[in-house]
Amino acid sequence: MPSSTYTVTGMTCGHCVSSVKTEIGKIDGVTSVDVDLATGAVTVDSTAPIAATDIAAAVDEAGYEVAV
Amino acid sequence: MPSSTYTVTGMTCGHCVSSVKTEIGKIDGVTSVDVDLATGAVTVDSTAPIAATDIAAAVDEAGYEVAV
Repeated sequence: MPSSTYTVTGMTCGHCVSSVKTEIGKIDGVTSVDVDLATGAVTVDSTAPIAATDIAAAVDEAGYEVAV
Repeated sequence: MPSSTYTVTGMTCGHCVSSVKTEIGKIDGVTSVDVDLATGAVTVDSTAPIAATDIAAAVDEAGYEVAV
């Protein structure tokens, strides 16, 4: 099962974490989203590889950014 | 129309502001809640005076604290 990790900037609290989890969770094939608020690390498990651009779009929708 | 201002600590983002507004807004007689995230200042307008303990309870429910 593919797993990928991104760094998301701008999250400050549990609400921010929930927003990011919700938006990434809407992507087809995503089975789990784990967020470490302290580091901004977001780990995405999925049934098939997810395009990084789809992750970035979901994070943007939540109001945050993927660090490049 | 009574208006009172409190300082709420622990809010870090717009989601936190929304949570505090929602919980205080549930109190009978409250007509508007204004929050300044930068300073933590929360201004509550109401049709009748609201007990400070009711405000503190609502803020606590949202997950934050009124500074004393």
